[in-house]
Amino acid sequence: MILTVTLNTALDLTYHVRSLRPHTSHRVTEVTERPGGKGLNVARVLAALGHEVTVTGFTGGATGRAVQDHLTYTPGVVDALVPVTGSTRRTIAVVDTATGDTTQLNEPGPAITPAEWSAFQEAYEHLLRSASAVALCGSLPPGVPVGAYAQLIRAARASAVPVLLDTSGEPLRRGVAARPDIVKPNADELAELTGSHDPSQATRDARRRGAHTVVTSLGAEGLLAANAEGRWRATPPRRVHGNPTGAGDSAVAGLLSGLVEHLPWPDRLARAVALSAATVLTPVAGEFDRSAYETLLDQIAVTADATAA
Amino acid sequence: MILTVTLNTALDLTYHVRSLRPHTSHRVTEVTERPGGKGLNVARVLAALGHEVTVTGFTGGATGRAVQDHLTYTPGVVDALVPVTGSTRRTIAVVDTATGDTTQLNEPGPAITPAEWSAFQEAYEHLLRSASAVALCGSLPPGVPVGAYAQLIRAARASAVPVLLDTSGEPLRRGVAARPDIVKPNADELAELTGSHDPSQATRDARRRGAHTVVTSLGAEGLLAANAEGRWRATPPRRVHGNPTGAGDSAVAGLLSGLVEHLPWPDRLARAVALSAATVLTPVAGEFDRSAYETLLDQIAVTADATAA
Repeated sequence: MILTVTLNTALDLTYHVRSLRPHTSHRVTEVTERPGGKGLNVARVLAALGHEVTVTGFTGGATGRAVQDHLTYTPGVVDALVPVTGSTRRTIAVVDTATGDTTQLNEPGPAITPAEWSAFQEAYEHLLRSASAVALCGSLPPGVPVGAYAQLIRAARASAVPVLLDTSGEPLRRGVAARPDIVKPNADELAELTGSHDPSQATRDARRRGAHTVVTSLGAEGLLAANAEGRWRATPPRRVHGNPTGAGDSAVAGLLSGLVEHLPWPDRLARAVALSAATVLTPVAGEFDRSAYETLLDQIAVTADATAA
Repeated sequence: MILTVTLNTALDLTYHVRSLRPHTSHRVTEVTERPGGKGLNVARVLAALGHEVTVTGFTGGATGRAVQDHLTYTPGVVDALVPVTGSTRRTIAVVDTATGDTTQLNEPGPAITPAEWSAFQEAYEHLLRSASAVALCGSLPPGVPVGAYAQLIRAARASAVPVLLDTSGEPLRRGVAARPDIVKPNADELAELTGSHDPSQATRDARRRGAHTVVTSLGAEGLLAANAEGRWRATPPRRVHGNPTGAGDSAVAGLLSGLVEHLPWPDRLARAVALSAATVLTPVAGEFDRSAYETLLDQIAVTADATAA
C-alpha cells in the first residue's frame, strides 16, 4: 500500500452564503463537509486511481470522529489515524454565491503532547513495513517538533521506503536536509526555501540542499522537475479554469502512483499535471474529472528543461 | 423537573480572528464551542439556579454527538434529545478582535421526517408526565410542521403542565392561538405578530390572541408583562454593556424558575430582568455573572404599567 501522513488533519467545510458582509448575520444555504488535510486529499485521489492507500496522522474529539466517519465511506482508503486528546481542526471556506469569491477561516490544530508524538512515530514505523511509498503532507499542529518531517524521512529511508515531502517553511527546510526522495514545493515555497525567485534556479538549489528529485508546481503552467537523471518541464495544453484547491495534492498522487508503477519520470510528470488540471475542473479537493484526466493525459507536453545549469 | 424543548439544537462556535476581510484567508486564534439553541441556554441557566432540568429536541450526526458530549459535562442537565438521521446544525460567530464586531454564519437545521416528528411527540408526552413546567424555544428545523408548537402546547395543557413559548413568525402566531400560559416575544417579534409597534398595545393584543401572560422583552430597557392579574414594567437600574446573546434565554429561565417556585409576578419579572442583565455581562449565552445577578436583583424597579388599556 501507499501511506500518506497528515499530521494536521481537518474537517473541511464549505458554506454557501448569498453575500458575505462583515458584522451581519448570514443564512448558510448549502453546507458540504469532507475529510481534509493534504494527505487525505492525496489518498482519495490515489484510491480513485485504484491504489491501496493507508492514511495516518492525528485524530481527536468530535471533529476527528467526523473525519473518520467520512473515511469509512471512502472506498480503498484505510484509516490508521492515531487518537489524541486535543480536537481535530475545522477549516471553513465561505463561498459568496453572488461573486464566487471565497473567504477562508482556519482553526488551529490540536496541541500534540510529547507522548502522542512518540505514539505516532511508533505507529508510523509499523506502517512503513507494508508501505511501497510514503507522502508527508502539510503543516504541523502545535507541539509537534519543527524537525518532525526530518525524523519521519530518516525512518522511511531506514526502511527503504521512497518518501515524498510536501510542506513549507521551516519544516520543509529541515525535511529537505534529511534527503527525501522527492519534494514538491510550489514556486513561493521554493523561493522561501532557496531565496531565489527563478524557479529553474531554485529547483536546482533545492536539490543541492538534499532532495533527490525536486518537482516544483508552477500553478496553471504545470510542473518543473530536476533530479540526477535530468530536468523536465511538463505543461498542460491550455489553462483550465475552476477551483485550484487540491490541485497540488493531486499532483502528489500522480507522482506517487507513477513511482510505485515504476513509470519513467516524464510519464509521472504528465500524469501529475493531467491530474492537477482535472482537479481544477471539480469543485472539491481530493476529487478529479476522470474523463478530462484521460483526455488531458495524452496532451501534456513534457520537454527537457533547457535552462542553463 | 423543568423541561426545555429545542427542536433546532445547534453547536455554537465562536471564532476570534484579527480582522475579518472578505475573500482573504484567516487564522482563527481562538475557538470556543458550546451546546446551542435557545432551550439549551435556558436549561444551563436553570441548572445554575439549582433546578433539575431535562432537555429534549433533536440530535443528529457528528455535530449532534458533540452537543451531547458537552451536555454530559453540564451538571444538573439531563439529555433527552431524540436522535434523527440528519445532522445537527452549527452556528459560527466570527468575532473581529480588532473591532469587537461579530459576523454570524448559521447552518440550516437537519430535515426532519414525519416519522422522526412522531417519535419526538411520543418522547415529549412521556417527559411531560414528570415535568413541572415546559419551555418551547427557538426556530423549527425543516420538515417540522409550522403548527408544531401549537401541538406541543395542546399536549402540555392536556397534561396540566404550564407551558412557555419563545419563538417568532408563523410558529409564534399558531402557537399563541393554542393558548400557552406564557409567551416571551421581543418587541420586533411582537410587532410582526400584532402589526402594532407600540409595545404596550401589542402586549395586550397578543393576550387577546390567546396567550394567558405576555412578557415582552424591551432589550436593555427590561420587560413589559400583561395577564389577567395586572400589567407591569420591570426595569434594570442602568444600561449594562456587553454581549446581549442569550439575554432573552436567561429571561425565560427567570420566568420559569419563578413559576415553579410560585413567586408573585413582580418577583418573577425582577428575576428575569436581573438574569438578563447578568448574562449581558458574560461573553457566552447560557451563562451569567452570579454576583452581578445577586446585586441587580434588589435594584430592579417593577411598576404597574399605567399605559391606557
